[in-house]
Amino acid sequence: MRTISTAILGLAVSIGLAGSVEAQSARSDIEAALVTFTKAFNAKDAAAVAAHYTEDAAILPPDSRRVDGRDKIQQFWQGAIDGGFPILKAPGKDNNPVDQAGKYIVIWKKGTDGAWQLYRDIWNADPATQQ
Amino acid sequence: MRTISTAILGLAVSIGLAGSVEAQSARSDIEAALVTFTKAFNAKDAAAVAAHYTEDAAILPPDSRRVDGRDKIQQFWQGAIDGGFPILKAPGKDNNPVDQAGKYIVIWKKGTDGAWQLYRDIWNADPATQQ
Repeated sequence: MRTISTAILGLAVSIGLAGSVEAQSARSDIEAALVTFTKAFNAKDAAAVAAHYTEDAAILPPDSRRVDGRDKIQQFWQGAIDGGFPILKAPGKDNNPVDQAGKYIVIWKKGTDGAWQLYRDIWNADPATQQ
Repeated sequence: MRTISTAILGLAVSIGLAGSVEAQSARSDIEAALVTFTKAFNAKDAAAVAAHYTEDAAILPPDSRRVDGRDKIQQFWQGAIDGGFPILKAPGKDNNPVDQAGKYIVIWKKGTDGAWQLYRDIWNADPATQQ
């Protein structure tokens, strides 16, 4: 089973908040949300994954059209889960499976309930590395 | 010659600024920078393109490793320009060229000189459409 590991690197803090108490709070809230997001993903729970997105979120998957709204996002991730995470596997030389690392930028948004959720999510692949 | 057209859609305004005078100013400054960025790109001027990025910027191109720093970013765009913008063309059915649309998220950062520059830039392709 493929798992995703989330490196929390350079979590961007928005202008006007940097260094403030609000920024520290945002950072720790988002780090906590990233942990539950990753757990949901690795548990193949598309509904729990989708719950981390705002109702009006959009994901921008490579080689696919943009997917708008939490319901459609849940369907997208369900499809990816059902397909055995094909987005994290790529055929390599002699059709051997290869690791597929990648990069992403996500935008988090704080809801009226105070919870941080994913508002925009875009990613793409690194060059494939033979296993 | 390929040109890029920049649709300014949903320019994200950071938390705490939305609706303020600062947000309006940021928006118009960034819109102006996008115009000169696009002109530089379409003039195939890699140095002028690179000048729109911060010194410590990173671009996250699809199927490539992350590229760090303005100098390396200039080299990347020079290569793309020299290659005839291969990132905007893809072979299609019968090897006919196809339009290659895509999606991106960029993060702008305001320098100490007050100028907004690109700090992070990630993009990926839509499904190819036959011309």
